[in-house]
Amino acid sequence: MSSVDLRVNTERLRADIDALAQIGRQENQGIYRMAFSDADMAGRDWLRQRIEDSELTFFQDGAANLHARLNWDKNVPSVIAGSHMDTVPGAGHLDGALGVVCALEALRVLKESGVALQRPLEAVSFSDEEGRFGGMFGSQSVAGLVTPEYLHAACDLDGISLMEAMAQQGLDAHAALHAQRKPSSIYAYVELHIEQGPVLDRKGLSIGVVDAITGLFKWEIRLSGSANHAGTTPMDMRADAFQGLAEFAVQIDRVLAEYGSPHSTATIGRVELKPGAANVIPGEAVFSLDVRDTDSQILEVLADAFRRTLSAIARRHGLMFDFSVLSDIAPVQCDMSVVSAIDAAVNTLQLPATHLNSGAAHDAQMIAGIAPTGMIFVPSKEGRSHSAAEWTAWDDIEAGANTLLHTLRQLAT
Amino acid sequence: MSSVDLRVNTERLRADIDALAQIGRQENQGIYRMAFSDADMAGRDWLRQRIEDSELTFFQDGAANLHARLNWDKNVPSVIAGSHMDTVPGAGHLDGALGVVCALEALRVLKESGVALQRPLEAVSFSDEEGRFGGMFGSQSVAGLVTPEYLHAACDLDGISLMEAMAQQGLDAHAALHAQRKPSSIYAYVELHIEQGPVLDRKGLSIGVVDAITGLFKWEIRLSGSANHAGTTPMDMRADAFQGLAEFAVQIDRVLAEYGSPHSTATIGRVELKPGAANVIPGEAVFSLDVRDTDSQILEVLADAFRRTLSAIARRHGLMFDFSVLSDIAPVQCDMSVVSAIDAAVNTLQLPATHLNSGAAHDAQMIAGIAPTGMIFVPSKEGRSHSAAEWTAWDDIEAGANTLLHTLRQLAT
Repeated sequence: MSSVDLRVNTERLRADIDALAQIGRQENQGIYRMAFSDADMAGRDWLRQRIEDSELTFFQDGAANLHARLNWDKNVPSVIAGSHMDTVPGAGHLDGALGVVCALEALRVLKESGVALQRPLEAVSFSDEEGRFGGMFGSQSVAGLVTPEYLHAACDLDGISLMEAMAQQGLDAHAALHAQRKPSSIYAYVELHIEQGPVLDRKGLSIGVVDAITGLFKWEIRLSGSANHAGTTPMDMRADAFQGLAEFAVQIDRVLAEYGSPHSTATIGRVELKPGAANVIPGEAVFSLDVRDTDSQILEVLADAFRRTLSAIARRHGLMFDFSVLSDIAPVQCDMSVVSAIDAAVNTLQLPATHLNSGAAHDAQMIAGIAPTGMIFVPSKEGRSHSAAEWTAWDDIEAGANTLLHTLRQLAT
Repeated sequence: MSSVDLRVNTERLRADIDALAQIGRQENQGIYRMAFSDADMAGRDWLRQRIEDSELTFFQDGAANLHARLNWDKNVPSVIAGSHMDTVPGAGHLDGALGVVCALEALRVLKESGVALQRPLEAVSFSDEEGRFGGMFGSQSVAGLVTPEYLHAACDLDGISLMEAMAQQGLDAHAALHAQRKPSSIYAYVELHIEQGPVLDRKGLSIGVVDAITGLFKWEIRLSGSANHAGTTPMDMRADAFQGLAEFAVQIDRVLAEYGSPHSTATIGRVELKPGAANVIPGEAVFSLDVRDTDSQILEVLADAFRRTLSAIARRHGLMFDFSVLSDIAPVQCDMSVVSAIDAAVNTLQLPATHLNSGAAHDAQMIAGIAPTGMIFVPSKEGRSHSAAEWTAWDDIEAGANTLLHTLRQLAT
């Protein structure tokens, strides 16, 4: 068989996706496979069994990341494909799981095809990507970004600590400090993931080749005025915090047009007014601002512009303003050699594809710190994700799996 | 003593205001004298004792409204001065209480002065003005606006029914249906109240003569778009419900300028975004719109204009919109004869005064349905009310009390 004719086994792939989708599923409410829950452990047991059934080598590192290994040689840098199997509560069946199952399938096909490999291949499922305990625990451990302080502080929303949750499942959280990989041990990292946005679906394309993963800053902003009676305070004697917020919100498009790139986004997703009664002028508006771009300089310029805009509005409306930075994450550029390998795979398979950026965070963002990294997207129906309505057509899943397969083949030979 | 020289007894008035302010007060948190609570009952006991000490006739009607009566003759229409003694939680010491205590003091002075009265006088404290069970229960009962359905449905926020709360205090809620007064039994109604707005305080005036009580409509509006990931959804593929709300909010000033009067107000006091997370584009914005004016035709025109504005914005942003009417209260014009009597009192006393409108609702609004009605305002420091920071200078309280006294004297003789 010519390597060009390599294809995933669609039925086997589909059976695996369907089988994993049943683990942690709650009737009509989606999947609940949160990190280190019993359902997550059941998913892990299932994956280990599938790896062993495939006669690939099973390996679990200190962060409880699960590896399937083919042609393993610890002295040769490996090509890794991975994602995560943990979910948010009420999740769909593809976010994370798709990348793990397709990576496993790619290794199975490469093993069965007998293609000569120059490099070891690994299919990895990273722990707690979704953030029950903060997020990207597994990939941060591999990238050497997890500290003892983090291990002791990490807690879920019910106050259960990461250490406690792992111990309950027979795992030692401290071992995560030993999961770090040397950059020299990884040749490349590729992650197949659903887009979680509407671009491929609207454009009717099967494959997105990711150029960059956006960085972001997230602020909590407070505008303070005077809470007064809505009936007794004339319009010209008000310091209405919500009016200040509204004026800021309508200036977002202008700020992005003046200072952003075509990829820039800015979102106000959370608003809290105090006191928050229909007959009281808001004395305080606390709201989130989430700004993303793939260029860190543009993010800096946007931060300045938003600060200036807020300051001018506060002055004009007689309000005070302050903000705190909730997160500040640098953008990541994908590696040209990995992007080229994905482009070549798309060409070989003659798939309808485009280049785009990832607006969401992924394990790839962490691994990019230690290895050349790329990402492959498949469409999300109507951009939906983190919900039971998450959907990708089987044709597109097959296209994504074959793109991953050919990318791995090229990177490993 | 010439009737022009009549004055309230400042020390007695102040002692009464101070005494009542202690009832239901919680350390550093203001006053908790909600309708039919134990603290409210203690306030009622105190008032009854003060009425009996003054040798005025005590009367309690079916709605548990408390009356002090002077020169009572059921065949002659009476002049009533009143307000309420119940409070919101964490209230100041003047909202309502001032009008009751000053009415009592005016009757005491008129009794002591021996002024010849042609009409009976009543000082009234109405039940549940502030709305533990819906609001203006006492004055609505007197105006014949309370129905058996209301009596059975009325509940506080803890699910305690009005009937239950009254029964616990030995009162029968059904008796409220017998509290209705015939219009022919009331010659005039006057209410002294703190302004609860900033106008008199900013202008440095002691007295506001109220021309009208604003009507209002209160809507709950829902704008619906699509909740999508803030990172993965490009700006031009969004249907952001909050952006629609923000654009509406900044158009409020334009709508008021084009269609309102100088008295019109419009307030967005409550906003709820769904799902309400920093990294999710709001799929739904539910918010309140409170619009007030003293002219019912202007209110109608404003309702049309706001509906048109919302509809256009929804269309432009790809949103759906619907709204429900939470309240719709007609404005009330004060009676010219009562307003003239107040003006005459202000002239006699040579007090710095202005005419203005009431932006808040009052018992007077209900009584105006059955009797000629007027209101007297005194300044609220910085417009503050419904808070422990509520304050009016003693000089202004004295000015208000004497204005009420002279108004009652003129109306009753």
